[in-house]
Formats: sequence, structure tokens, C-alpha cells
Amino acid sequence: MELKDKRNLSMLTDFYQLTMGNGYLENGFKDTEVIFEMFFRKVPDSGGFAIACGLQQVIEYLKNLNFTEDDIEFLRGKAIFSEEFLNYLLNFKLDLDIYAVKEGTPIFPNEPILKARGPIIQAQLIETMVLLTMNHQSLIATKAHRVKRAAKECSVMEFGSRRAQGYDAAMYGARAAYIGGVDSSANTLADKAFGVKCVGTMAHSWIQLFDSEYEAFEAYAKVYPSNTVLLVDTYNTLKLGVPNAIKLAKEFLEPKGERLKGIRIDSGDLTYLSIQAREMLDNAGCNDCKVIVSNSLDEYTIRSLRHQGARIDSFGVGERLVTAKSEPVFGGVYKLTAVEKNGVMVPRIKISDNVEKITNPGDKELYRFYDLENNKALGDVLTINGEIIDETKPYELFDELAIWKRKVLTDYRVEKLLTPIFIKGKCVYQSPTVTEIKKYCAEQLETLWEETKRFDNPQTYYVDLSQKLWDTKQELLRKGY
Amino acid sequence: MELKDKRNLSMLTDFYQLTMGNGYLENGFKDTEVIFEMFFRKVPDSGGFAIACGLQQVIEYLKNLNFTEDDIEFLRGKAIFSEEFLNYLLNFKLDLDIYAVKEGTPIFPNEPILKARGPIIQAQLIETMVLLTMNHQSLIATKAHRVKRAAKECSVMEFGSRRAQGYDAAMYGARAAYIGGVDSSANTLADKAFGVKCVGTMAHSWIQLFDSEYEAFEAYAKVYPSNTVLLVDTYNTLKLGVPNAIKLAKEFLEPKGERLKGIRIDSGDLTYLSIQAREMLDNAGCNDCKVIVSNSLDEYTIRSLRHQGARIDSFGVGERLVTAKSEPVFGGVYKLTAVEKNGVMVPRIKISDNVEKITNPGDKELYRFYDLENNKALGDVLTINGEIIDETKPYELFDELAIWKRKVLTDYRVEKLLTPIFIKGKCVYQSPTVTEIKKYCAEQLETLWEETKRFDNPQTYYVDLSQKLWDTKQELLRKGY
Repeated sequence: MELKDKRNLSMLTDFYQLTMGNGYLENGFKDTEVIFEMFFRKVPDSGGFAIACGLQQVIEYLKNLNFTEDDIEFLRGKAIFSEEFLNYLLNFKLDLDIYAVKEGTPIFPNEPILKARGPIIQAQLIETMVLLTMNHQSLIATKAHRVKRAAKECSVMEFGSRRAQGYDAAMYGARAAYIGGVDSSANTLADKAFGVKCVGTMAHSWIQLFDSEYEAFEAYAKVYPSNTVLLVDTYNTLKLGVPNAIKLAKEFLEPKGERLKGIRIDSGDLTYLSIQAREMLDNAGCNDCKVIVSNSLDEYTIRSLRHQGARIDSFGVGERLVTAKSEPVFGGVYKLTAVEKNGVMVPRIKISDNVEKITNPGDKELYRFYDLENNKALGDVLTINGEIIDETKPYELFDELAIWKRKVLTDYRVEKLLTPIFIKGKCVYQSPTVTEIKKYCAEQLETLWEETKRFDNPQTYYVDLSQKLWDTKQELLRKGY
Repeated sequence: MELKDKRNLSMLTDFYQLTMGNGYLENGFKDTEVIFEMFFRKVPDSGGFAIACGLQQVIEYLKNLNFTEDDIEFLRGKAIFSEEFLNYLLNFKLDLDIYAVKEGTPIFPNEPILKARGPIIQAQLIETMVLLTMNHQSLIATKAHRVKRAAKECSVMEFGSRRAQGYDAAMYGARAAYIGGVDSSANTLADKAFGVKCVGTMAHSWIQLFDSEYEAFEAYAKVYPSNTVLLVDTYNTLKLGVPNAIKLAKEFLEPKGERLKGIRIDSGDLTYLSIQAREMLDNAGCNDCKVIVSNSLDEYTIRSLRHQGARIDSFGVGERLVTAKSEPVFGGVYKLTAVEKNGVMVPRIKISDNVEKITNPGDKELYRFYDLENNKALGDVLTINGEIIDETKPYELFDELAIWKRKVLTDYRVEKLLTPIFIKGKCVYQSPTVTEIKKYCAEQLETLWEETKRFDNPQTYYVDLSQKLWDTKQELLRKGY
């Protein structure tokens, strides 16, 4: 089931997309075709890769892109737009070609993850929503996989709705986190909308309602005998919470043939408490009772807890995942790379006082090279659209900034990563389900070397330019525009 | 105009709110009245205060709270909820009293900013959406005021939609930032929906479309002669961008009786470039041309730019404001503070292994004391609901954790900060417009001392307990629950 989202987000665009749109039209560029590309410059948290996410919502936005009379009236009130432009918006009909990397694909800095080709007014207009959507979900999917890598075989629950940056952050955050690797979410609507398995048992308020902790535990177990997970830190974890949980297992659950499913610790020294709790549970024969912890966790605290020997089965991860707290911005940008002149696409470059802001020009393709022997990804190459890579011949990679560093690939296969999504405004792509995307993501991540996936100083994955593209870029740099 | 938001967010709730709701009902607590309170524990960025924001969206959520047949069917599929509970949801009718601090009010740690009283199933259910809404908008309003304080008399534009954490983060982020102090936003829909003034002129793509920067400038000025703001860093700010802008002013705009309105610098050393650009503009007689800068700004970089003597009139602030990047979580929590027993509200406390997680028990009121002479806020006091503060008599404040630290207030007036919003499920409060809230916020902030507002080691504002409330808390702590 899809989230039935009736909002019209067509006006969620930076105002300058509209002032430029009006200006393009006034200057005779209404039918000028251009190419824009989305790419990002740096992996959050100094990681070795990111995960593309959010394409399905970009598709929904583009399918529904339209302006109401009400929108037009609002814009007319600004008294700067021509009637011709307002009319263009009122009768807006998408006419773009969109190519994008599939959701769940590992992506790397400076490669196109979405490409829009078509009339400049349209390609410009969609920038805000394309970036907003892909930046957010790619950020969370990337973070979620970090958390899951730290947790290893332990399960991870996404718990962050209450601290998310708005409702969409809770909803699409749960979606992206699930795609990126977490096992479940506390967000009920995310389950209904996207099939993200939702879970949850009790909060401290449940315990506080009753006159004693034991009464609270028993009242819960009466209702959910086969899914009794008890929050044990309301008063005192080791002196009250865990003993009461064991008492409930022995005196209430086990006589009914049920087992205590889990305890959750939400405060205090999680290493110490989990070790002690585990021992108390094991000594009481509750060996199958899971120890679940929460409280401002992320990949760093989880790694530290594991390193310290904490005895934990499952992590509830909230605010630090749903906001990607350690680095809450995915810096995707959307840049003009080519402009049609007399029927030919002429490459454009953006030179900048900040070297890392220089763009790769032209209409490009993105290829991923795989080792035929072990199916590991060997590197990505940006080519000029139309260049052919002959898999039967060796292919020479070279570093754009250090062209003497070269490596010849043999026994490889290539895949084009940019898939057609819209052609002339018509959607030609059917999004997989969220569960399918999650599975695809896990498979794709198998193609990366562990050295690329580690947290500390990950190996830099090759993203190179083809010789032809490199030549084009150098020529534009020499010309200065 | 309001944002027409047709989404039903009733199911956007942590799943445990539902498992507990079902459990309350099964255990005979269907009509048990309780009190929950929202408060926060720490001001982001070690600031001296936060700004309450988001109440209007909480009201909209509560007014629209309802479950569809579809929702019930989904929940029934979980096979853990009783038909009686599902029926309760299907026929849900809000029956809560809600009191809250008005939007735009400065707020401090450990004081109630929202209080819900009513049937436990309902008061529990709304936790997720209340926190999600208030946490997000309070975070951004608080951050926005920091950015505006750093910018002082310079204007600040919110530019962050493309890097926001989802659509709501862009929309309600723009709303909260405007309330907190920024002057405008790039988000067109935020203008239409909330009256947040939207602004914007051109991106690098405009420049790149043309064969030369000057042609691009001229094409823009032709369309917007009285609002020409030129992006000058596409190729080379000082060698090309600023000279071209001046040339345009002299050869194109001024002969028409127009003036160059502004230039924007989006990369490079903003201090150096702004000083040089200002000098070039002044020397050319473009003294009224504004210098606007952007590029990963926040209150820290703005303060540093000002300190270095940068010549800037206006700041465009994007990702670091809309995500509150330096601390992207507002840690509001929602805790049970009282439970009705035989018609009497009995205070409840949550004790925790983490001392800062201990709650203030009972049904409380929140008073702010103002100095009659200068209208400055003297401190806040939490009382037991019903306690009367006689403004004609001295009032003694004391520190909860250091009760020998006492201060006697005279010549003061008090204000109750918790306003009735819903009574027995009926909304009794009319939200002001966003512009009115922005004005109210600015006025309220005038009541704070500069020492509370500074960034570094701000003075801690008093938030004390009345003697009666302190006694109640001590008694519960002694009892251990």
C-alpha cells in the first residue's frame, strides 16, 4: 500500500526557480533543452559510500506536478511574472526525460545519481523537490546501514518518530532506514504505508500507572502473554526491574507455558546493566529472554557497547538515526551540465573559487565495473553519453587529478547505473516495493569490499572519467567556462 | 491561508501507544484520567533558552484525529488488539483537556510546555505527534533566533529546502524559522501557506545557460530591472563577476533610472571577497548595492564573518538552519505526572538511573515572574495546580538542588504560561497568524536579559519549584516511586 498523500507539493520550490523560469521564457528559452544532474560531493560521517534512496517519491512528485488556479493567483500577486509564464504553469505538462540510479544502490561522490533532460523551465523547476527528496532519504538510508553494520547480527529497531524533523522525516525516515538495513520501526503509519514492520510494547507511563512495577508487569503479561517485553528501568534496573521481570517469568508466564520474551533498558550504564541483567536472567533459566537497550544510540555507541562486551540482543535507535545526528545533511546538488544549441547538446561547466565545486560537464553515462570472478565492484566510470565500453577488451582507469595513476581492468562486466524513469514526461519505470528495495540494497552492498565499508579511513572507491570526458572537461577549464 | 494538508496522520504514532492503549482498556483503565506533560531537559547548542513552536500544528492534528476503517483493518491484521479497542479507535472522540505555552514564548528546561489531562488511552496516544511537532518546530525556531542574533541588523534569508529532512521539514522549518527571527524564506509554498515572505533571484544555472556572464546578467536585468540581484561567483568573483555587475549597473540599469540592487557571493573566502567587492562597488558609485552571501552559514560563521570585518548586508542560510545542524534534536519528552484514583489526582514520578531523567510529579501550573519596573523576566516557578501567588507579597525562590540558595522577589507580577487549548476535546483557542506569532516572539524575547541570550556561557534562568511542589517531590523520592 502506498501512503495516500493528497498534498500538492508543486509549489514547494525555491522562489528563484520561478523567477528564472519566467526569465527563461522572457528571453526566448522556452523550448531550449538542457541537462541537469544531481550528484553529491562528500559521504556523510567520512564514510566510503552512500545509499541512493527516495526515487519513488520523486516519481510521485513528478507524476502529480501541477499548478492550481489558486497557486497562479498567489504568484500573480507577486507582480513580477508575465501572464505567458503563469499560463505556462497553469497548463504545465511534464516533458522531461529522467534517468536515475535505482533506490538501494551504493553511490559515490561526484557521479550523477539523477539526470534530467528537457525544456530548461521544467528541468529547473524540479530542482528543489528532487534534491529535498533524494537528499533526505539517501542521508537516512546511509546512516541506517552504518548503524546496522555496527550492530552486526543484533537486530536494530528505528524508534525516532518523536524526535524527527517533521512528519515526513518520521515517515520517509522510517522507509529509508528500513531500506538501508534496520529490521523494524516503531512508526505504525510507516508499516501501513510502506510495509516497514512496526514493533513496540510499553513506555514508562505503563509502569507508572500502577501502584507497583510488578503489578504493571503482570497487567501487561495478562494481555500479551506471548509477547511480553518489559521495560525494567523505571525505578531501579537491577534491584527492582530485572528481579520483577524474573518473578513474572517464573510465577506468571512459565506456569502458563509462556516464556519471558525480553527486557528493555532505557537508561544508565548499558554495558554494566546488560551484563548483570543477562547473568540474572540466565541464572533464573530465562536464557531465551532478549536484552534490548535504547537511549541515544548510534553506530558509535553501539560499536563501543559491543567492544566493551555488553550482552545485548537488540538495539532501539531513535533520534540519532532519524536525524542522522552526527551529520544531518546530505549535500546533493543539481547542476546544469549541457545546453542545446542548434540541435546539439553543448557541455557546460561551473568553475568556482572552491575547487571541489567544479562540475563535470556534458551529457554523461555512469558505468559500474564488476569483477567477473567474485562480482565485486571495481570502480565507476563517467563517460560521454554514447561512448561504448567493450567488455571483451581491457579498460584503463585513471585518476582525474593524478593522471599518471592508472590501472588496467580485464575480466570485468559493466552495468549502466542510470535507468530511464521518465521519457518525454511519461513514467516508464515501476518502483519495486520497499521490501524488494531493501533486499536489492543488501545484495548491492555485497558487491562492495569490506575496506570500502569500514568506518575508519575507508578505502576510496574509484570514480573516474573516461578519456573523452576528461578531455572535454580540460578544454572547458582552459577556456574558463 | 493555511496549508491544506489532507493527510491523515492519526496512525503516525509509536506502535507501543497502541499496545498500551489496548492494555489499558483490557485492564479496566478505559476511563482512568491521567496527566501527561511535555517538557525538555537541555537547550540545544548550550543556549540559555528555547522558543516554543508548533502548537498550531498540534491543534490541527488533534482536531482531525480519527481512524478509518482501513486503519482498523490494518491494526486488526496484527492479531493482538481486542475488538473492543479497535471499536474504541474507530469511534474515537477526543475528550482531553490540553494546556500549552503559546507559540513564540521563550521556554526553559524542566518546565511543562504542554499538559494533557484526560482518559489515559487518549493522553497516551497523542504522545508521538505532540512531541514530533513541538520538538521539530521548537528546534528550528530556537536555532533561527540564534542565527538572527549573530546577524544583528543584517537580514537573514532561510534557504534550506533542498537540504531539509523531508517536505514537512522544509515547510514547517520555514514557518518556525520565520517565527524565530529570520526575515524571509526561499520556499514558495511556505509563503502561500503561512505568509512567510519568499524571496529569490537566480542560481548558477542561469549564468551557465548563456555564452557569457555579462549576457546572463543583462538578460536577467531586462526582465527584473528593479530587482536585479546578481550571482557573481560562477567563474571568478572579483575578476569577472563583480566587474560585470558594475558594468551592468553603469551601462544598462542606470541609463534606465534603475539601480543595481545586490550581488550574491556563494563560494570562496566570504570575508575577503565581500570587502573587495564592497570597495569595487563603492568606487563605482554603487553604494546602495547590497552584498549578500551564502554557503554553509550558521550563527558561528556569521559571528566570525562580522568579527573579521566582512562587509555584508544579508545572509542566506540553508542546511545548517533548516536541519539545526550543530544540534539537530530538540529533546522534548512527554511523561505521566498524575493518575486519578477515586476521583483524586495522585502525583506520579519517574525515578531513573540517570538523575536528569527524574520527573517533576503532579498536576502543575507554570508561572513567569516579571519585574514591574523594567518588565524583565525574573524566573519561572512550577506550582501545584491551585496554589495562589499573591503579587502583593514577597515571593521566595529557591534552587531545587541547593535549597539554601534563596532569593526574595518583590515588585513583581506573574503570568500563567499554560493556556487552555482544548477543554473536554473541544478547541477553545484560536491560533494567531504566523506573522502575529513572529511579533509576539520578538516581544517576549525583549523580556529576557542579554546575559540569558548570549551564546557563550549564558546565565541560567531560574526555573524553581514552589515549596509545596518540592515537598511532594521529596516525599515521592523517599518512597522510591
